[in-house]
Amino acid sequence: MKKAICLFSGGLDSSTALAMAVKKYGSENVLALSVFYNQKHAKELEAAKNVAKYYNVELKLLDLASIFSSSSCSLLSSSQNEVPLSSYEEQAKKEKGPLSTYVPFRNGLFLAVAASIGLSNEAEIIYYGAHADDAILNAYPDTSTDFNKAVSEAIYLGSGKKIKVEAPFINLSKAEVVKIGLELKVPYKLTWSCYLGHDKPCGKCGTCIDRIKAFEANGVKDPLIYEGEEK
Amino acid sequence: MKKAICLFSGGLDSSTALAMAVKKYGSENVLALSVFYNQKHAKELEAAKNVAKYYNVELKLLDLASIFSSSSCSLLSSSQNEVPLSSYEEQAKKEKGPLSTYVPFRNGLFLAVAASIGLSNEAEIIYYGAHADDAILNAYPDTSTDFNKAVSEAIYLGSGKKIKVEAPFINLSKAEVVKIGLELKVPYKLTWSCYLGHDKPCGKCGTCIDRIKAFEANGVKDPLIYEGEEK
Repeated sequence: MKKAICLFSGGLDSSTALAMAVKKYGSENVLALSVFYNQKHAKELEAAKNVAKYYNVELKLLDLASIFSSSSCSLLSSSQNEVPLSSYEEQAKKEKGPLSTYVPFRNGLFLAVAASIGLSNEAEIIYYGAHADDAILNAYPDTSTDFNKAVSEAIYLGSGKKIKVEAPFINLSKAEVVKIGLELKVPYKLTWSCYLGHDKPCGKCGTCIDRIKAFEANGVKDPLIYEGEEK
Repeated sequence: MKKAICLFSGGLDSSTALAMAVKKYGSENVLALSVFYNQKHAKELEAAKNVAKYYNVELKLLDLASIFSSSSCSLLSSSQNEVPLSSYEEQAKKEKGPLSTYVPFRNGLFLAVAASIGLSNEAEIIYYGAHADDAILNAYPDTSTDFNKAVSEAIYLGSGKKIKVEAPFINLSKAEVVKIGLELKVPYKLTWSCYLGHDKPCGKCGTCIDRIKAFEANGVKDPLIYEGEEK
């Protein structure tokens, strides 16, 4: 039995959400849920294993690749599209809607999966790390406050009023997420955010740009070493 | 590319929903989505194949069993619980909440899966066959009108306002579903509703009882031959 399920990619946001869940419920009562969905690289899942191990939390890894077999999302193996090397804001202004890195209804799907697993485990809450930077200009529509409200209601009602959704960063910027994470001493050096799967993070894709700025805003150097940086 | 996705179990309700989707969009534009989720028997999936073939509709079969590996739902192989042989109403009065046959958040999960697949296929609508008999006394909380409203909103917003949910029977009884299906000449003899996996449907479980009554209310004999009946 687990009290809390945390959607957990091994990235910065979900690692911070996991830290909050562990602080509130204790590591033995938290299940971290990671998904293989046909990502072009496995860097995030490796990071997920390391962070889960750090927190002594059970990690459940699901393979849902078959659901995304015909997606053109640039993060997925099914797609020939390349990941854009520019900020979310630049991309969103250009694309006028969901970015090429929007994995179709990913948050909605993973939250629903967590609800099914949560009911089997008598869990009472699902954490996920959606934050306001991702919702800018509708870049990722499944991270908006309106989506969060509707999906929380759907899960609460559809689970027989057993399970609530907690999105602690839904109104916060990534800089504010990092601020919370630094206070909680989240091991950010173990996390992986970059959309590319190189040895080191690229520093140029949307999520790298957002991450680097978020640390800078806190007056702290990101503990990861980026491509082109000296150790 | 498909315009409509239909959640499709091979049962009476979803076969009727499929007939409606085919009538509106044409068989070539409809994708029927069936899921193996660790059911104790494969009768419904066999029926799904036959009905999809009848309508000349592409059938996508997904294996999501790993999500339900620790569920105690009496329909699943993971559970030792037996399927109750009484009506939904009797069970719901006794259990005061979701029935033992409630598959945890099944509709919510399958709708989310359909949204992800729908976005990859440029679909604009998802059909599912939830109806009012299933929502009685909170027997299946993921079939209620309130749940439907919330999940429809979540999918519409989370998909970037691309995908709507259509639940044509949400306010109808199963008898009214059958009425629509009889007009559409749905091949009900090919469908399977029974929770047990015997050669013939049992006629005694909640869904058999509801189904038999639904045909009776229309003055028509269910074309299936039940256990104990002569051919």
